[in-house]
Amino acid sequence: MADSPNCDLKSLSPLQLFEKVTEQGEKVRALKAGKAPKDEIDAAVRMLLSLKLSYKTSTGQDYQAGLPPKDLVLINNGTTKEEDEDLVDPWNVQTSNAKGVDYDKLIVRFGSSKIDTDLINRIERAIGQKPHHFLRRGIFFSHRDMDQVLDAYENKKPFYLYTGRGPSSQAMHVGHLIPFMFTKWLQEVFDVPLVIQLTDDEKYLWKDMTIEKAYEYARENAKDIIACGFDVNKTFIFSDLDYLGTSAGFYKNIVKVQKHVTFNQVKGIFGFTDSDCIGKISFPAIQAAPSFSSSFPQIFNGKENIQCLIPCAIDQDPYFRMTRDVAPRIGQPKPALLHSVFFPALQGAQTKMSASDPNSSIFLTDTPKQIKTKINKHAFSGGRDTIEEHRKYGGNCDVDVSIMYLTFFLEDDHRLEQLKQAYTSGELLTGELKKVLIETMQPLVAAHQERRKQVTDEIVKQFMTPRKLAFEF
Amino acid sequence: MADSPNCDLKSLSPLQLFEKVTEQGEKVRALKAGKAPKDEIDAAVRMLLSLKLSYKTSTGQDYQAGLPPKDLVLINNGTTKEEDEDLVDPWNVQTSNAKGVDYDKLIVRFGSSKIDTDLINRIERAIGQKPHHFLRRGIFFSHRDMDQVLDAYENKKPFYLYTGRGPSSQAMHVGHLIPFMFTKWLQEVFDVPLVIQLTDDEKYLWKDMTIEKAYEYARENAKDIIACGFDVNKTFIFSDLDYLGTSAGFYKNIVKVQKHVTFNQVKGIFGFTDSDCIGKISFPAIQAAPSFSSSFPQIFNGKENIQCLIPCAIDQDPYFRMTRDVAPRIGQPKPALLHSVFFPALQGAQTKMSASDPNSSIFLTDTPKQIKTKINKHAFSGGRDTIEEHRKYGGNCDVDVSIMYLTFFLEDDHRLEQLKQAYTSGELLTGELKKVLIETMQPLVAAHQERRKQVTDEIVKQFMTPRKLAFEF
Repeated sequence: MADSPNCDLKSLSPLQLFEKVTEQGEKVRALKAGKAPKDEIDAAVRMLLSLKLSYKTSTGQDYQAGLPPKDLVLINNGTTKEEDEDLVDPWNVQTSNAKGVDYDKLIVRFGSSKIDTDLINRIERAIGQKPHHFLRRGIFFSHRDMDQVLDAYENKKPFYLYTGRGPSSQAMHVGHLIPFMFTKWLQEVFDVPLVIQLTDDEKYLWKDMTIEKAYEYARENAKDIIACGFDVNKTFIFSDLDYLGTSAGFYKNIVKVQKHVTFNQVKGIFGFTDSDCIGKISFPAIQAAPSFSSSFPQIFNGKENIQCLIPCAIDQDPYFRMTRDVAPRIGQPKPALLHSVFFPALQGAQTKMSASDPNSSIFLTDTPKQIKTKINKHAFSGGRDTIEEHRKYGGNCDVDVSIMYLTFFLEDDHRLEQLKQAYTSGELLTGELKKVLIETMQPLVAAHQERRKQVTDEIVKQFMTPRKLAFEF
Repeated sequence: MADSPNCDLKSLSPLQLFEKVTEQGEKVRALKAGKAPKDEIDAAVRMLLSLKLSYKTSTGQDYQAGLPPKDLVLINNGTTKEEDEDLVDPWNVQTSNAKGVDYDKLIVRFGSSKIDTDLINRIERAIGQKPHHFLRRGIFFSHRDMDQVLDAYENKKPFYLYTGRGPSSQAMHVGHLIPFMFTKWLQEVFDVPLVIQLTDDEKYLWKDMTIEKAYEYARENAKDIIACGFDVNKTFIFSDLDYLGTSAGFYKNIVKVQKHVTFNQVKGIFGFTDSDCIGKISFPAIQAAPSFSSSFPQIFNGKENIQCLIPCAIDQDPYFRMTRDVAPRIGQPKPALLHSVFFPALQGAQTKMSASDPNSSIFLTDTPKQIKTKINKHAFSGGRDTIEEHRKYGGNCDVDVSIMYLTFFLEDDHRLEQLKQAYTSGELLTGELKKVLIETMQPLVAAHQERRKQVTDEIVKQFMTPRKLAFEF
């Protein structure tokens, strides 16, 4: 670095400045420890003070060792929250609002774009059919660069879909199906390849779990995913623990990402600390790498530049903000994203559902009776305390979990609208509404169980074998 | 943690205490940020102060955020040096002494064991032949658990050898051959499998180099290694970039190590900082994993418990101290080690040789004329300024690079002793000594070049293909 650092520092981001100050501080300490000549130490200290001044000018804050710049944290980091802000990161979703997370605020904080009527209409024109009710009802509500994907599609350029799941237990609930149901629809209407990552390595790193158990959960979860009806000729499902050991292309992309992301950056984005294991610290690169088509040479014939579109819940966005930041620096296209809202727990929209609490949701293994009992007993109601009051004042659809679940799973727009109106007016009682939900969920889960039974180990093996799909590249 | 933390803190190491203080500090910050009740914050602060006191009692130092305990650094960390101490880590070797690094001090600092006459005699009995001159002359001078390897060998239990190289350039010098020459001898006398890791991913992460270049260097370096005369039926050479994508066993061990090592630990051992990329931070696990036989299921038939012996230069020890710390926690045997001294630069023993300075050593591509010129021009001499003085006072073998090189490469003990005596007495002049070195190195390098010419791409491919070796497990 030149003696006068201010000349070229203005172009640096707050985080880059923060890193420069940190580096220079380390240099000063090293010089002092090494008993370097006084003038050399003095020059390094002057440079440090000058860098700290630039940092303060740029951020309005004093430099504090170990604390990356606050405005960056506010924009990039779901783990830090202002008062009354929702907490959203890959491991936590918390809000104090019974209606759930404020998604409009989240779009601003994360810097993504709202899926508006114009975009939905454009998708309708591109595919020549009515968009999925997840789009029409704002369940997939936010995106990054979806217009570029549509540009590519309209110009007959290929793209592919990438989604995933962390297999933390055998028990998947109906909320886990949302990204897969939507991805299946996307794959059908656009007719594109799909890769599905099962991050069994992540679960091993984060949980008190053996590698063998994590891998077993991955294979069990694959069965539920396959049961959503994916086409084996167009879909590749992989466990990290498995696929990393069978694809040199995948590991090369992981190392490329790992070279271009510092600990400071993952600390800012994911809130990692010095006490975290090095596996957690480097894991984000493993979730990033499938965004690049060269991770799948068997599918894309080694081509590096195929656009990727990632449908996922918004809590996964931090991984892909990082990925999009790195992509141009390793000569790869940025992945586009479609973000969904969170699926509410039966007890209400304040938290994301938990696979470890059997009463927090409807599980894919539940019997019709269990479904009925759970909904009747646990589904948070927006109804009034007495029938009289309910008839008089009506129910509150904004906080009613039955209405929320029906918004996800009842495909008939007209019927849903009728139910909402009748519930709001007080005409429809909570018990009657719950009955509709029970009658919607029972056949849905039963049909899933029926399809899952058909998924043999042989079929899982087919989906999880690295191979060419039914597309030419 | 209980309210009174002191009861069970005495059993903790300084680093564990350091991590507890750090964690508690983070907890206090989180409570304050989350506006937790005052009594909860107060209790957390009391706990923090109590932990800090325990830390001070244990280490004699105040806790400083981001600075792991100093006594740990002194024992475990080659990157921090006391005054007059040599600096030795995987990336730096520095000493102010013309005789080179003080290896006896290094043994104490690193906590390894000296290879003494008893151990050398035991090796001689075990193999029924004279030990290699690298052992007899103290070139391999330090070890960890070599006695256990000999126990196993005497009880007919199997073990295997693991060594490696970071392929930073095409140009290897004669010093790079030392671990391979010795490993070849070990393999022959013990008749065991050998795996050789080429850390092309490390070089990509550390240097300004493309992945393709790093991989190319790995393959070129493999040719020089093969030219040392390894048996293709008993030896597996692998590039990380290649092998990681072909072996699920290898990646599983990497993740296991990564789960059991924190950033604090690699910071203490390797001196990494927050500005380092996450690839560097997690890399030590990749050099650790080949110490476990399950990384090579094709060789060891999936067996997990085969003892590993690692011959390497002492600067690589930090990786394996870490590995040995992790091994029991992931149910694996600790690898044993044999450490060599550093090979001196032609200019003297103060620094390790550098592949980037063509005059710093004799390269494997040098012509006989280049070898002659380099030795005559650059080999640091322990001789006197004038012939008269030299005849009168004699030369200094301790700092003379020709004597050092002959100690490595002249196998004839008697001849070497004669030369040393004659040089010390002043009978042998520097020019005459250099002539002996030239006549030793020229045929050695020429023979290497001749053997390297025979190493075709096909032969490299054979060595680098994952396969069963000529051993049953």
